[in-house]
Amino acid sequence: MPTLPFDLPILSVFSSAGGADEGAAFADALFSLFMLFLAAKVGEEIFRRINQPGVIGELIGGFVVGPFALGLANVSVTAEVFAELGVVILLFTVGLEVRLDDLLKVGPMAVAVGSIGFILPIIAGMAIGLAIGEEALPAALMGLALAATSIGITSRVLSEMGVLDRAFSRVILGAAIVDDILALLAISILSGLAEGDLGVDTLLTLVAGVGFVGIGLALAPLGRRLPRKLFVWPRFADTPTVPVFIIMFAGALIATVVGLAAIIGAFVVGLFIAETPVREEVEHGFRPLLGIFAPFFFAVTGANIDMSALLQPDLLLIVIALSIMGVITKLVGGYLGSFRLGKWNAIVVGLGMSPRGEVGIVVSSLGLTLALISQEIYAVLLAAVIITTLVAPFTLQWSIPKAPRDERHGGEGAGAAA
Amino acid sequence: MPTLPFDLPILSVFSSAGGADEGAAFADALFSLFMLFLAAKVGEEIFRRINQPGVIGELIGGFVVGPFALGLANVSVTAEVFAELGVVILLFTVGLEVRLDDLLKVGPMAVAVGSIGFILPIIAGMAIGLAIGEEALPAALMGLALAATSIGITSRVLSEMGVLDRAFSRVILGAAIVDDILALLAISILSGLAEGDLGVDTLLTLVAGVGFVGIGLALAPLGRRLPRKLFVWPRFADTPTVPVFIIMFAGALIATVVGLAAIIGAFVVGLFIAETPVREEVEHGFRPLLGIFAPFFFAVTGANIDMSALLQPDLLLIVIALSIMGVITKLVGGYLGSFRLGKWNAIVVGLGMSPRGEVGIVVSSLGLTLALISQEIYAVLLAAVIITTLVAPFTLQWSIPKAPRDERHGGEGAGAAA
Repeated sequence: MPTLPFDLPILSVFSSAGGADEGAAFADALFSLFMLFLAAKVGEEIFRRINQPGVIGELIGGFVVGPFALGLANVSVTAEVFAELGVVILLFTVGLEVRLDDLLKVGPMAVAVGSIGFILPIIAGMAIGLAIGEEALPAALMGLALAATSIGITSRVLSEMGVLDRAFSRVILGAAIVDDILALLAISILSGLAEGDLGVDTLLTLVAGVGFVGIGLALAPLGRRLPRKLFVWPRFADTPTVPVFIIMFAGALIATVVGLAAIIGAFVVGLFIAETPVREEVEHGFRPLLGIFAPFFFAVTGANIDMSALLQPDLLLIVIALSIMGVITKLVGGYLGSFRLGKWNAIVVGLGMSPRGEVGIVVSSLGLTLALISQEIYAVLLAAVIITTLVAPFTLQWSIPKAPRDERHGGEGAGAAA
Repeated sequence: MPTLPFDLPILSVFSSAGGADEGAAFADALFSLFMLFLAAKVGEEIFRRINQPGVIGELIGGFVVGPFALGLANVSVTAEVFAELGVVILLFTVGLEVRLDDLLKVGPMAVAVGSIGFILPIIAGMAIGLAIGEEALPAALMGLALAATSIGITSRVLSEMGVLDRAFSRVILGAAIVDDILALLAISILSGLAEGDLGVDTLLTLVAGVGFVGIGLALAPLGRRLPRKLFVWPRFADTPTVPVFIIMFAGALIATVVGLAAIIGAFVVGLFIAETPVREEVEHGFRPLLGIFAPFFFAVTGANIDMSALLQPDLLLIVIALSIMGVITKLVGGYLGSFRLGKWNAIVVGLGMSPRGEVGIVVSSLGLTLALISQEIYAVLLAAVIITTLVAPFTLQWSIPKAPRDERHGGEGAGAAA
């Protein structure tokens, strides 16, 4: 019998069913999950004790055990699935805490923040691209990579600080939806341009994306009329947790089918469930799920950080330029779009929109696949995406206490009362 | 932009990071998880409504969407990891419901049930093997494949029927531990024989296995003295759920390191936590985790069922012979070992020990790897393992109502009062 832990044939009913390779992959995936989870929690603990954002501790924990540092954990497909479910559950629970009426109240402001904050980074990124000698299309791609916000990190910080009921939080969440729809449109236009085929498909994509969110928001008020027993009619369901988990998972998958991010689907389902009588039960039942799944999102994000582009001085300069412009353009977008909330509240909105994520990585990968950009520019874009993400928890923790509660617009009173 | 859902580049921050292949694997894993979960719940619902064991519905649901039927779900490494965590969490929560004192009270009975029920199937399986013309070592391997019980299914049925506090349940759980230690020993002897290297390693393996369980059981009473704050001291922990999840996960991994099944490690950790003041909080926090993870174990088990051996008449006869002997030998072992509980209680013990699982599959795979058995015999053994497993829920549902509460031994009173 081998003495190494991960050659043991008895590890699992499954490990050996698929042969030695699959058995090793299984054991590696299970052990990596444990290391990522443990590292995330140790990192969070350390950062909380030095009064820094816990989420940064989780990211750094994941980085430390990940393949670009100690190499104790591999980022397998399994870890990615746990991470994705983690951020899906996170955005679902954020949706649970938002009242639809409050969200619609800040609708115009969210559209302004989302749109301005989407266009400015494209212009800035394109300018930097042209300045370093890229052609128009690659330069536009560099801008687009910096255009779309990913609110996983921001949501976690807002939730951790207990400010999800504030107007700036609702503006950020609404703007993230606008942002995601614009990204959907922009990616399909870019793909069309690059493949020389821009037409009905692009329009259909947009209609599907807007339609999904629109139908979701339109259905949400109906939730108020649904009886609790609708969620617990199955015999397998003592509580609404499992049925709602299925609905959330389905919503996330359907969102990806129409081309939106899975988290937008989960968020919209969360908005819907928030209007139903099972909201509190679901919040309660999902707390352990959030506690177990969400850390994987941050740990895996951290484990994927490859800062090799920062080691080359000439590339480092471009990274710094893109990162600074990335943060400033979102700050300006947030400020201009929501200045009626008051100076500091508007600054919080802008800083909360700073983290880029999946769309930035998707656009960069697309550029690489279409041979629009080089490997160096790809690494540069990823580094800039990561930096805009890391900046948010610190700047939010600094700016939120400065933002007065008496926001002049956006229904703060209603939000606080809810 | 592609219109197929699982080519969408925007699916996830992770899907595209590792290239197109990994992106496709990620999307497939996520979609397969959804299908397996949904199928398990639909299957459970149907079976509950026709008053059959819900767990059989989950197994059949998994089979129906799995690769040997509709093919809507693949059993990826990710699905296997979810399944493994599902059965680990299941056995942990079963451990939570068992009082250590009650378990130790049935200790001698559990040793008798575990030992007799381990030896008889080896003899019977070996006899069948010799009868069909196999050599001694391959025949012994066939017997060993039918020797070890896997209590995932039985635990679920006992829990579903609300009888985990009965003496027969504790005898089954105790016997499963004995059984697993014997399997550990038998596998290491078999590997040693096949590789011509039987010595100190085999002994060390046994010492490690017994030591792990022994230390776990010895530490458990100390749990009573531990204050609640020990489980919630980390700042990341509002409740004991996340710290206890880490301890459970670690226990499961350590068990595999010493050569035991992961579920035995989780069960022992559960016994320990049951003695601490956080038991009820943990039970409460783990209920949603159990609801989300456990169905994957049953659905994946169902999805892995390949009944092709049953289509060949000559093989079918061997499968039937092995299955009947498999059930009878465990029934006799349970009956002889625990007859002092009374006739029907002892029958329940025997039927509860019937399901074979990981060890049977591990032994069969080992036999295939060592070229001791043919592909046909391998398929035959897997089919027999599956049949002994499917028999248990039906026979338990039939026999448990017949078993009187006034068991003559085993501390039923104490169990019922706890």
